[in-house]
Amino acid sequence: MIKKMVLTLAALCLVFPAMAFADDPTAGTLNMGINSLWVMVAFVLVLLMQGGFILLETGSTRMKNAGHVAGKTIFTAGLAALIYWAVGYGFAFGADSSINGFIGFGDFLFDPSIISVDDGLPTTLFFLFQLAFAAVSLSIAWGGFAERAKLSSYFIFTIVFVGVIYPIVAHWIWGGGWLAKDGAQDFAGSTVVHLSGALAAFAATVLLKPRIGKFNKDGSANEISGHNQVFTALSVLLLWVGWFGFNAGSTLAIGDGFFGYVGFTTMLGAGAGAVAALLISWAVNGKADITTMLNGTLAGLVAITASCAFVEPWAAVVIGLVAGVLVFYSAKFFEKIKVDDPIYAMSVHGAAGIWGTLANGIFATDELAAKVGVGQGGLIDTGSWHQLGVQALSVLVCGVFVLAASFLVLFLIKVAIGFRVTEEQEIIGLDLSEHGAYGYPEQLKKGQGIQG
Amino acid sequence: MIKKMVLTLAALCLVFPAMAFADDPTAGTLNMGINSLWVMVAFVLVLLMQGGFILLETGSTRMKNAGHVAGKTIFTAGLAALIYWAVGYGFAFGADSSINGFIGFGDFLFDPSIISVDDGLPTTLFFLFQLAFAAVSLSIAWGGFAERAKLSSYFIFTIVFVGVIYPIVAHWIWGGGWLAKDGAQDFAGSTVVHLSGALAAFAATVLLKPRIGKFNKDGSANEISGHNQVFTALSVLLLWVGWFGFNAGSTLAIGDGFFGYVGFTTMLGAGAGAVAALLISWAVNGKADITTMLNGTLAGLVAITASCAFVEPWAAVVIGLVAGVLVFYSAKFFEKIKVDDPIYAMSVHGAAGIWGTLANGIFATDELAAKVGVGQGGLIDTGSWHQLGVQALSVLVCGVFVLAASFLVLFLIKVAIGFRVTEEQEIIGLDLSEHGAYGYPEQLKKGQGIQG
Amino acid sequence: MIKKMVLTLAALCLVFPAMAFADDPTAGTLNMGINSLWVMVAFVLVLLMQGGFILLETGSTRMKNAGHVAGKTIFTAGLAALIYWAVGYGFAFGADSSINGFIGFGDFLFDPSIISVDDGLPTTLFFLFQLAFAAVSLSIAWGGFAERAKLSSYFIFTIVFVGVIYPIVAHWIWGGGWLAKDGAQDFAGSTVVHLSGALAAFAATVLLKPRIGKFNKDGSANEISGHNQVFTALSVLLLWVGWFGFNAGSTLAIGDGFFGYVGFTTMLGAGAGAVAALLISWAVNGKADITTMLNGTLAGLVAITASCAFVEPWAAVVIGLVAGVLVFYSAKFFEKIKVDDPIYAMSVHGAAGIWGTLANGIFATDELAAKVGVGQGGLIDTGSWHQLGVQALSVLVCGVFVLAASFLVLFLIKVAIGFRVTEEQEIIGLDLSEHGAYGYPEQLKKGQGIQG
Repeated sequence: MIKKMVLTLAALCLVFPAMAFADDPTAGTLNMGINSLWVMVAFVLVLLMQGGFILLETGSTRMKNAGHVAGKTIFTAGLAALIYWAVGYGFAFGADSSINGFIGFGDFLFDPSIISVDDGLPTTLFFLFQLAFAAVSLSIAWGGFAERAKLSSYFIFTIVFVGVIYPIVAHWIWGGGWLAKDGAQDFAGSTVVHLSGALAAFAATVLLKPRIGKFNKDGSANEISGHNQVFTALSVLLLWVGWFGFNAGSTLAIGDGFFGYVGFTTMLGAGAGAVAALLISWAVNGKADITTMLNGTLAGLVAITASCAFVEPWAAVVIGLVAGVLVFYSAKFFEKIKVDDPIYAMSVHGAAGIWGTLANGIFATDELAAKVGVGQGGLIDTGSWHQLGVQALSVLVCGVFVLAASFLVLFLIKVAIGFRVTEEQEIIGLDLSEHGAYGYPEQLKKGQGIQG
Repeated sequence: MIKKMVLTLAALCLVFPAMAFADDPTAGTLNMGINSLWVMVAFVLVLLMQGGFILLETGSTRMKNAGHVAGKTIFTAGLAALIYWAVGYGFAFGADSSINGFIGFGDFLFDPSIISVDDGLPTTLFFLFQLAFAAVSLSIAWGGFAERAKLSSYFIFTIVFVGVIYPIVAHWIWGGGWLAKDGAQDFAGSTVVHLSGALAAFAATVLLKPRIGKFNKDGSANEISGHNQVFTALSVLLLWVGWFGFNAGSTLAIGDGFFGYVGFTTMLGAGAGAVAALLISWAVNGKADITTMLNGTLAGLVAITASCAFVEPWAAVVIGLVAGVLVFYSAKFFEKIKVDDPIYAMSVHGAAGIWGTLANGIFATDELAAKVGVGQGGLIDTGSWHQLGVQALSVLVCGVFVLAASFLVLFLIKVAIGFRVTEEQEIIGLDLSEHGAYGYPEQLKKGQGIQG
Repeated sequence: MIKKMVLTLAALCLVFPAMAFADDPTAGTLNMGINSLWVMVAFVLVLLMQGGFILLETGSTRMKNAGHVAGKTIFTAGLAALIYWAVGYGFAFGADSSINGFIGFGDFLFDPSIISVDDGLPTTLFFLFQLAFAAVSLSIAWGGFAERAKLSSYFIFTIVFVGVIYPIVAHWIWGGGWLAKDGAQDFAGSTVVHLSGALAAFAATVLLKPRIGKFNKDGSANEISGHNQVFTALSVLLLWVGWFGFNAGSTLAIGDGFFGYVGFTTMLGAGAGAVAALLISWAVNGKADITTMLNGTLAGLVAITASCAFVEPWAAVVIGLVAGVLVFYSAKFFEKIKVDDPIYAMSVHGAAGIWGTLANGIFATDELAAKVGVGQGGLIDTGSWHQLGVQALSVLVCGVFVLAASFLVLFLIKVAIGFRVTEEQEIIGLDLSEHGAYGYPEQLKKGQGIQG
């Protein structure tokens, strides 16, 4: 009788805990669910950043190009979705193993089974998140095209950049490629996303040459003001908001709440960038320059992007402060060497992207590097120059690759079909010349406000 | 002694698993929590789409009407909240059983107990999500009212549309009504939300007649350009972002991560619509038309709305491409038959809404239909015309009902209090005539830029 | 043998349930995860409200000040992040115990350990959420500075308000301070955030005196219209959307889904405010005033902020309706007593903030007060005046403190460095005088549209 009791009990003992959750999802499913939801939210925030780019680029350029500038962001985002689906994702994260750590392969025309899950995350959500990053890098690149590139060049460059160039860099650092194996730290893409975009912009603006009227014959520069600072200020806010998806979302998981820490350092970097840039412009120029301050906020965000998961709060503040000062002098520098950078892509995403990536080599702590599981602590925490070296190598290699590849593609476009619109088209504006209608027809039709 | 041990153990065995989670929520509660959070996020995204409509409608119309157009969206959204609370929700999802599958009943002046939960979701969140959908359908309808309807007609039509017309269609397809029982597939509302809104817009624009100056005496059409393409481009981005709440949120649950798949096909549909529309306008007109491209993006989203959970990725791309081409020719068609459609509601939400609903009958797969639990696979997967027939019936019945009901209500408004402002009021603009002040007082006060 | 079986079983019985979840997070971790995610989402929504403020303030003011008004929001939000991190958070929620319930202390230069969790929430996320609230209160205060304060005054006031004044009030009501112990109900900050901001605005506008041209010598007022109602309407939508993070996010937890209920009453309050304000302006003025309607929507939201978790749905509608009417008469009142309130901060956030806080004393139910765990039911539910008394005291004490402290600080600024720009600077606009460039350079450079 007792034996029977024991056996019954044994059965009960095994069944009951399972039973208690019988109709309910398991802890594993719930955990996957929470992470899925977080990545969906983060993806949506990063997609919202395209709204920031629409406002940043139109606000920083002239009324006669506003419809063109705004519309092409939607178009190229749409095209990017198709191209990344067809090939880009496969080169960055293709399931077949990486080819010598250089490029991924597989999953072209990405067709996941309905609820395919990898590393506790539906692959569909991983795809969407990564696509949104590619689209951000692309939108940064447009900064160098502004107000004078042909629409057809946007079309072709989107295909090559989203299909091949960007995925290769993403593979190197995030797709298990050779830089990842080296311990290169770039948590959310100061290099992968921002520096890549900025160098594509640099290649474009060098090939296109400056806008008509930007530089005088004596080498001095003219200010070509953007037409709407409400747009640029609002753009910074939208980008700032989206950046919490960008940085904190790069955890790809909720886990122990570490994504909150990443958001926290992100906030400090942004704030420090805004304050430093305003003060430096106020001190140097005697006027608090709004454009500089807005650029400083973005530069703080770009810089903290690589390091948000690797540094302590005080370091986040320092990184942001330096970025804010850097963006001010960087913009001066590019103007001095006669590079026309209408949206400040080279300063905001380029200079601050380099600074942010290097900053890991200085400020990363061993504790946080261990937590993230990439690389080691930087100069201050460890006294070792190793990580700084890795970071510098990472900037150098990615930079050279993206710059060379972008330059080559754009050069071929220039030779084959022409890259820049005619002088006449540029003067009347791209809204009329490329699309046949003003974006602001009531305000411009009588010829008011058109600058040469 | 052993017996005592066994009994102690039995108690322990039962208590311990429960104890392990004693202070913690159960898996069921956690699951409800995740789903609640997802629906809250989705609701917020769908509400954000009203920001898209504010920018889409103002950007597509003239400066003299901008304050009116923007303000009425806020006002009618507020009124819609009260009406849907008082009656609309009760007709769509009222707890008392459906009356012959035609209309719901109950839950008027909706007053849920504090934490009432139904199907694993707090009813308060289900209410908010459904309200946001009703408000989207309403905002689509306003497309047909633009630039010439009296403010009072907005007031009355909101009450009837949100209180009765929309809830009836929602009940048929989503509230357990007769079309739901028939297996009509409309995952997130190509028919319920978009086609309904478009047909209300159609009824309005037919009754109102075209805007002054839209058509010449010889029957040819004039372009009445909207005043701000930055607004329209940004509107498309906001709607695109919001659509991930709209479509993926319609899962109402996280479960196995299927909501990610829904988001994935949504992205492909949008991208394909943008690309197809730009290319067709470029090929046919010789200029890449921005408005067409923006409409194509939205048309891709509208079309994939019904099918996002039922089709494979390649089919999502095809559905979006067709929608992008369709919206271009549809807009031409409505202009040809002299229907004035300022916001392109008939083409974007009507034509693409019909296409999207029918597309299920072609592209749905048995596997996905089984997963969602509605209807069956379409022509390609099953070789059967059955689902296409169901979809066509669904479009036809809902279409006829909404068109007839909206026409009747608007006709009564026209007879009773007048639907259209006077010619003089229309010429000076609704900002001055309906509200006593320009929305852009500094830009318009000197009579600059006012079109007749 | 049986004894061995029993012992084995005992071990099994203890190990198995633990084993079943061995690799998975526990229910407690998952619960923390869900709450973390909700607070992150809510924080992002509240941060997005700054976009609303950018549009609300620029849209309500003139073109010549647009760059200044928009840019300073970004700058002060950035500065607020640093100040709140350095000192504000420590005074509001510092870990060391409260000093007589008056002020918190500790956690300056906030440096949480990486995954420090308190009350089931990572402290980093609690920090971000609270910071976003402080920034909202600050942005409300700017309403009183509009179009005539020096940039340096923004700088100094941000430091004092975010560093000291706001944290003290937050400590009293939310940080376990003396009003919290009294049972003062202010769920999401009608008093803490909105009334505080409004009274700082009041202090500023009284010290600054009205804008040039606002009042005539005979005491009559002139309308100084804002320049863009599309911006103001969109601002209200963004604020409305953000408010679901503000109110529902103040639950700080998902739990049984109560946050959905809070969102539900919030929606009703907003809708009622919009409708009531439009109708009262239509009835009294004969024209449906858009600005009043937009203010009514915000007033409904401000009023329901204190009570969203304490009242039934019908009461939420009543609270919103009263707020909508109140904001109309309040704006008239402030104009009558010659207080220049360009963004209607005193009416929208002040009058409606007071009404909302008092409304708890009338409409709160015992059931909901018990659920939230603060105070008791109000007059209608309990017949007792007690809670109304507590609410009135809370308004009075917080109001007097914020008004006095803000007045003192701003008076010292006025005396020490000057608070208002010169008459000439005000006439040419702050974009030129404070920043050296127009925010709308193409539209203003030829002197079009500049009002004196």
